[in-house]
Amino acid sequence: MSTSIHRDQLRPGETLAEFPPATDAGLRFIGRIETPFRVRADCPRQGDPENGPECTVTLDPVYAPALDGIEQFEFIELLYWLHEARRDLLTQSPKADGRTRGTFSLRSPLRPNPIGTSIVRLIERDGPWLIVRGLDCLSGTPLLDVKPYRCDFAVQARAKPGVST
Amino acid sequence: MSTSIHRDQLRPGETLAEFPPATDAGLRFIGRIETPFRVRADCPRQGDPENGPECTVTLDPVYAPALDGIEQFEFIELLYWLHEARRDLLTQSPKADGRTRGTFSLRSPLRPNPIGTSIVRLIERDGPWLIVRGLDCLSGTPLLDVKPYRCDFAVQARAKPGVST
Repeated sequence: MSTSIHRDQLRPGETLAEFPPATDAGLRFIGRIETPFRVRADCPRQGDPENGPECTVTLDPVYAPALDGIEQFEFIELLYWLHEARRDLLTQSPKADGRTRGTFSLRSPLRPNPIGTSIVRLIERDGPWLIVRGLDCLSGTPLLDVKPYRCDFAVQARAKPGVST
Repeated sequence: MSTSIHRDQLRPGETLAEFPPATDAGLRFIGRIETPFRVRADCPRQGDPENGPECTVTLDPVYAPALDGIEQFEFIELLYWLHEARRDLLTQSPKADGRTRGTFSLRSPLRPNPIGTSIVRLIERDGPWLIVRGLDCLSGTPLLDVKPYRCDFAVQARAKPGVST
């Protein structure tokens, strides 16, 4: 979409920049994520690794050997490409409260490099398929990476009361 | 480097694949990270947000407004491009123990999409500069994203004893 179309879709307080082309590095989609979330309004604000729905992550079969050993981990980190997100917003005014904040102070999918990260519970692995709980992305989201999750320090960070992300 | 050069650098048990070009999506580097780690051997296995050295994250000034509000967060998540990492390994045998595992069962920088993620403590912000603790990457690493860190559930996941990542 051209910037002129995007400009019409700004909420009060939102600003954008016209960035150079995104050609500093290239990504290769390694698989696809299926969730029950068909449109953005369906997506929860954050996934729930305990009670969220089971989601299916299907890797390209060429990557199956790269999953060897993943079953040993209770939690894994998934990186994925937020393929429907615009990339030109500097500030955003989320619908939830309308307060304007910088893009990097939000976990909104709209960002210069729309990469999502989630810590999910690994329920099952079968070859190139993973069943996980804790995703919040659209069904059909391209997968970028799978990493074991290490939490050697107990971060209990929360935003101060009244701060939403 | 060509695959033939890479093939000579494999440890026992390591396997690689010849992947298609990485052209599914493009990234834009938004800044640069400075750490005390000049070569890979200097990098700790994991950053330490409590006692690790202070590191400087410098964003391109065009992104400064996108940081508005970031000071409210004690911890932030940084995504960066592991620019020196090869991308073709399916299995790896880390020097530390020589045991062969799938790439996705390791947090090694060598991966199909070499994106690093770290939860870091935000010490200070000044315009497009951030001072943080908890990074483990090489100095000069390109920055991809800054996100507030939310930890609404207390994941205390550790690999089972004897499992290293």
